[in-house]
Amino acid sequence: MQTDRYPTTVYLSAPEMIRLVQLMGLPACIAGVAARIEREFLRWNEFDKSARVACHSDVGVIELMPIADKSQFAFKHVNGHPTNHRHGLPTVMAFGVLSDVETGAPRLLSELTLTTAIRTAAMSALAARTLARPESRIMALIGNGAQSEFQALAFRDLVGVRELRLFDTDRAASEKLAANLVGQGLDVSVRQNIAEAVRGADILTTVTADKTNATILMAHMIEPGMHINAVGGDCPGKTELQAGVLEKSAVFVEFEPQSRIEGEIQQMPADFPVTEFWQVLNGQCVGRTSASQVTVFDSVGFALEDFAALAFMSETAAQLGLGEIIELVPHAADPKNLYGVLRDGFAPVTASEQVPAMFVEQTA
Amino acid sequence: MQTDRYPTTVYLSAPEMIRLVQLMGLPACIAGVAARIEREFLRWNEFDKSARVACHSDVGVIELMPIADKSQFAFKHVNGHPTNHRHGLPTVMAFGVLSDVETGAPRLLSELTLTTAIRTAAMSALAARTLARPESRIMALIGNGAQSEFQALAFRDLVGVRELRLFDTDRAASEKLAANLVGQGLDVSVRQNIAEAVRGADILTTVTADKTNATILMAHMIEPGMHINAVGGDCPGKTELQAGVLEKSAVFVEFEPQSRIEGEIQQMPADFPVTEFWQVLNGQCVGRTSASQVTVFDSVGFALEDFAALAFMSETAAQLGLGEIIELVPHAADPKNLYGVLRDGFAPVTASEQVPAMFVEQTA
Repeated sequence: MQTDRYPTTVYLSAPEMIRLVQLMGLPACIAGVAARIEREFLRWNEFDKSARVACHSDVGVIELMPIADKSQFAFKHVNGHPTNHRHGLPTVMAFGVLSDVETGAPRLLSELTLTTAIRTAAMSALAARTLARPESRIMALIGNGAQSEFQALAFRDLVGVRELRLFDTDRAASEKLAANLVGQGLDVSVRQNIAEAVRGADILTTVTADKTNATILMAHMIEPGMHINAVGGDCPGKTELQAGVLEKSAVFVEFEPQSRIEGEIQQMPADFPVTEFWQVLNGQCVGRTSASQVTVFDSVGFALEDFAALAFMSETAAQLGLGEIIELVPHAADPKNLYGVLRDGFAPVTASEQVPAMFVEQTA
Repeated sequence: MQTDRYPTTVYLSAPEMIRLVQLMGLPACIAGVAARIEREFLRWNEFDKSARVACHSDVGVIELMPIADKSQFAFKHVNGHPTNHRHGLPTVMAFGVLSDVETGAPRLLSELTLTTAIRTAAMSALAARTLARPESRIMALIGNGAQSEFQALAFRDLVGVRELRLFDTDRAASEKLAANLVGQGLDVSVRQNIAEAVRGADILTTVTADKTNATILMAHMIEPGMHINAVGGDCPGKTELQAGVLEKSAVFVEFEPQSRIEGEIQQMPADFPVTEFWQVLNGQCVGRTSASQVTVFDSVGFALEDFAALAFMSETAAQLGLGEIIELVPHAADPKNLYGVLRDGFAPVTASEQVPAMFVEQTA
């Protein structure tokens, strides 16, 4: 009875998420999140979707990304601040919540910095597995910051990439990435420039941080059959591809209304043709049409990916016994008497709330 | 140095917020939040404002309410589920966050269920102090649920109300409210119906929960000079006033784009005249023009009120030594090496992070 009345909120802190990933193994987490994203994308029309809400400043952006189905509401608070490393902070930090649509009660509060890195890589690899040539083995990885190891491992496991060619304007970042990938079954080399990294690759992944209209990839660099995984261009004024790259490619996006604002296609006319990726997944639209076609996954990050990641992490944490119960909502004995909690003093957490529901039902 | 690098997040749980209000006293909290709301409303144009994002279901709504100035981003997660009491849960539950615009780091995570009750009452009373006749002493309070005690005390302290006439379709709710107000300097009576509660009152406060186009107040009940504080009509399909009440009144709102969707004025044509309350506060627009005019504060709840409440609670908690530091963001020694946190094991919280910054600077 008590457990039914009180809206328990589970908190997964950053240290507990690290522990979760260590216990599961990063490859299993990436694969699990990718499978969950695929499952959720296949029921696309069951979700109440909207473009995220962004608050822009001179130095970065803070975004809220909500989404819901009939039973759960999810949102993520995430920032993108390319110069955060100067403060010793990650470019991207995030946390999120799962709530019950039935009552509005928050049920999970979770770190999502590490989880966003995992879900972004999982999404990229899921798209590439569907859109890249099946025999793709060589990937150029441009931008070797916090997200890069996750991309490398996701493409190794989900796509079959075996060779990685690294480039970053910060050579130390490439060396950090190469060092982290030692002994992980990938042939890794650091290249002198983008053109050298790109030449002859099957897949090009761009994951740079600068909030600018950059041209990391130019049309003349693109060879027939390449798949481009464009991750870093993800808000107005922040792109990585020369418009000519898009003109010669078949372009796939997550949620078109958001991608028109935030993606590489913000450079293109409003009627530039794109395909929503979920339609390729469910067979409604065609993906790659030939071995020589160039495909682009113009990724910006969509709330449904976080919904999937929150669901996976929540279920995994429950299996592993991770997470703690926090009192984010006051526990009023009479819900119409909120004022009463001020008279009753601290809302007590009774011992019965800390034991499994089944036991409580037997003894209540 | 460490304290600069690590984005400390303070967590104010529901029990700690209860303790804060107990230590400060509820009247001081209401007055403090009202003063902060007034201060923030007076710099209205410094805020990046948007209508809140709502997720509607058959039984209720979950909303995200973001707002930012140049230094802080705030948002609230709040629900409205009129039948939640059947589950033993409050109709309205909330929590919120303050983040740094400069870096995107979350700096405060706070319960906002109790705080929302305080800020809503503070906003209502602030508006009434500006818009009602100065000699207003009698208030009809229609809807005696979780928010009602807070309204009663705010109007006592900020407006000078001395007599309260209560009505609720749930008689037990009115009796609960009357019992909570014993000995608090208010002459309280429970009335048999709305008309009896309203007749001869100076101020009418409606704070009912049903998600329906109700007509709690009818045009024929309204007497010259009354001020109507319409709190409960706050989302599409949820109103409390007959359209005729609005037609005979001067109507004031918080943020017009949101109120057109959610407020009592959703019933009216798009060009129905309203005044944003901040313009009355700063003298840009006139409020009440005569002692016989009927004024309506068509309140729906705006993010700036939560921004103000979060700021007040955050500063008060710091003064009282309340709140705990949580690790919502992983602590990577090298911000470009997020992957490294998985190798390093648990991100350690060093002793130096748990002592004041000044001490750390001296010893580092």
